[in-house]
Amino acid sequence: MTNHPVNCSILTIGDELLIGQTLDTNSAWMARQLNLEGIWLKRRISVGDDAAAITAALDQEREYSDLILITGGLGPTSDDITKEVLSHYFSSPLEVNLPLRQKLREYFERRGLPVLASNLRQADLPRDCLAISNERGTAPGMWFEREGKVFVSMPGVPAEMEAMMIREVLPRLRKRFGAPEILHRTILTAGQGESFVANRLEGFEKQLPPQIKLAYLPSFGYLKLRLTAFSPGFPDAFRVLEEQANLLARELSDLLLAREDISIGAVAGRLLLGLNATLSTAESCTGGQIANLITQVPGSSAYYRGSVVAYHDQIKTSLLGVYPELLAAHGAVSPETVDAMARGTRQLLGTDYCLATSGIMGPDGGTPEKPVGTVWMAACSGTQYLTRKIQLRFDREHNIQAASNQALLLLLELFRGARGAKG
Amino acid sequence: MTNHPVNCSILTIGDELLIGQTLDTNSAWMARQLNLEGIWLKRRISVGDDAAAITAALDQEREYSDLILITGGLGPTSDDITKEVLSHYFSSPLEVNLPLRQKLREYFERRGLPVLASNLRQADLPRDCLAISNERGTAPGMWFEREGKVFVSMPGVPAEMEAMMIREVLPRLRKRFGAPEILHRTILTAGQGESFVANRLEGFEKQLPPQIKLAYLPSFGYLKLRLTAFSPGFPDAFRVLEEQANLLARELSDLLLAREDISIGAVAGRLLLGLNATLSTAESCTGGQIANLITQVPGSSAYYRGSVVAYHDQIKTSLLGVYPELLAAHGAVSPETVDAMARGTRQLLGTDYCLATSGIMGPDGGTPEKPVGTVWMAACSGTQYLTRKIQLRFDREHNIQAASNQALLLLLELFRGARGAKG
Repeated sequence: MTNHPVNCSILTIGDELLIGQTLDTNSAWMARQLNLEGIWLKRRISVGDDAAAITAALDQEREYSDLILITGGLGPTSDDITKEVLSHYFSSPLEVNLPLRQKLREYFERRGLPVLASNLRQADLPRDCLAISNERGTAPGMWFEREGKVFVSMPGVPAEMEAMMIREVLPRLRKRFGAPEILHRTILTAGQGESFVANRLEGFEKQLPPQIKLAYLPSFGYLKLRLTAFSPGFPDAFRVLEEQANLLARELSDLLLAREDISIGAVAGRLLLGLNATLSTAESCTGGQIANLITQVPGSSAYYRGSVVAYHDQIKTSLLGVYPELLAAHGAVSPETVDAMARGTRQLLGTDYCLATSGIMGPDGGTPEKPVGTVWMAACSGTQYLTRKIQLRFDREHNIQAASNQALLLLLELFRGARGAKG
Repeated sequence: MTNHPVNCSILTIGDELLIGQTLDTNSAWMARQLNLEGIWLKRRISVGDDAAAITAALDQEREYSDLILITGGLGPTSDDITKEVLSHYFSSPLEVNLPLRQKLREYFERRGLPVLASNLRQADLPRDCLAISNERGTAPGMWFEREGKVFVSMPGVPAEMEAMMIREVLPRLRKRFGAPEILHRTILTAGQGESFVANRLEGFEKQLPPQIKLAYLPSFGYLKLRLTAFSPGFPDAFRVLEEQANLLARELSDLLLAREDISIGAVAGRLLLGLNATLSTAESCTGGQIANLITQVPGSSAYYRGSVVAYHDQIKTSLLGVYPELLAAHGAVSPETVDAMARGTRQLLGTDYCLATSGIMGPDGGTPEKPVGTVWMAACSGTQYLTRKIQLRFDREHNIQAASNQALLLLLELFRGARGAKG
């Protein structure tokens, strides 16, 4: 791709990233923010708490990028060496920043905590960096400029980094670079796999202007399609991208869930708001993950009443009203049980719709008739009932994720039925 | 750090990683596996679906590492270019692999799906790579060797990559490298922040043998401490690391939750098994996240009965037995309500223990008396009752995460009380 006037590298520092103890959520979050500012993330790199590795990475990334965002290694403990390495790298000796030291002292005193020497050392900063204040912690950020390149060092704790980016770093980057836009349009689909959708879109891809790129982003049970345009040298980018996104949505109208980059939980939420209806869930094998997907959407309390996570069979009978005889005859993982769970929970929680799951997520608990990965799900309203079986082949964690997505898709199907019946 | 006979780089490919649409979970998972094999991950790097960027990264990483693991860009759609780039990079033209083509045909026919030309093209592979079979999908992996360096390309879909690593790649790496061990010992603590623990450990760090490294890994409400030793040139590494881990656990005995790298959910689970007791949860603001943390632990059905996610106040009164008068007088976010939720749910689900939460996660819903981030939590048995208020300052997602961790810590406190009462 061409025409990215501001290129960025993200450098994350920490042994924990290299042994897999910590998931790097910072890079993805930062990437989203940079995109909105029209800054193109060119490379992401992680190295350990090792001066030589950090120095080599800085040397390398400044060749590729105008902006190098660094996270991690700013804590008060001995494995945190980023500040010392940057001080050396930029030949900028550490000096105490007195106002910052005073702020640190107040931070600990306000919390009734003793002030340790290691905490006060966080006020020592390289002489010619710009200190960036940390609203949620004690380690300040640092902004360096060298030969037209900007280097910003931030803490690795996500909440501290995020507040620092939003309040301090992004506004400064806007002033410094005033970058042009990278435009995205994403649609959300379900019902056909990546290769089948790609086959349907051969004609669409042929007519796509060369400045617009199409990407396929499959996830458990659904598929996002993303169109990207770079505005420099493409003056009418916004309008053309809009047209192409509409065309794409028409081509895939039978699979279309949303014309935006939103989650399935958010799609379900909007439909519930539109129907002025309420939802409850009864989760066995998904163990609260569906409730989680729904309540991650701000404002979900307007339509979501709650869930019964019936992990044990006894809850299914005593609370959800599944007859013990039915459970004994068909087993917990059966269309009969999951349907009874949905009906019972809908009654119990007094909602318009209910969604239920029951399955075997592994690693143990499978039988020849019902192997690990067997999941039954049910969705119901007062008048409509759907059940479905899926067979998953992932590990426990991904089985839970996939089953939760598929259950929400079943609910969307029920909604389509409801709208069809009205129309 | 020195003495890592087998160094590895992970190269993840895909524009979605650079715009933050997809979280890179593959790298962390691969890192954990490599560690167990004694292969040291030196660098992780992500680049876009761009031939020049991929080629530059390959050139660079082969300078650092003996092994380059590559994921992504192997799908059947036009944005997937990894195979073509590798074919060109290794001057190894694509040729059809007939057995593989036959397997692909069978894969689609077995599923009753049409066989597309784009699917069959997945059987075209660079002439001198070793094809690695994909048990969970259609894109094969590729293994190349050049000048003593190994390059392995795998799909980016986590479930496909994971199965390929475990069944094919790791066994081959073991044969190829027979690497020595990197040893880790991790302990889990809660109750004091990183800098205070570090201050207490000054003496411990001073006596630590130079071949052992201590790292601090803070997360919402708890702190992991990890000791790492590299066995080459350190013959007694295992015993010394063991001794140091025991010493560390003694130094922090008042904060110690576990002597292993396990989750708080797993710690709670073990204690429940030890007490031969059962648990239920009543979640309002955490929306199923606590149930999720508990049920992510295999075997949790032995002690976990279920949860009522009482997202709406009506559920709190109608189902959990919170008196409407109490709710009206004190509000949903109060010690009275959360305590009543815990007692009611414990009764309702018939468990020994119950844990409840109620709070305001944001972005909206705060008041001057109860600002966003106010969370009340309660833990109870039949005879013991604890309530606690915390004030969080993150965004919605992190507030939910932090509140769930803190609630599990409150439960652990109640357990300590129970053991104390018995002892």
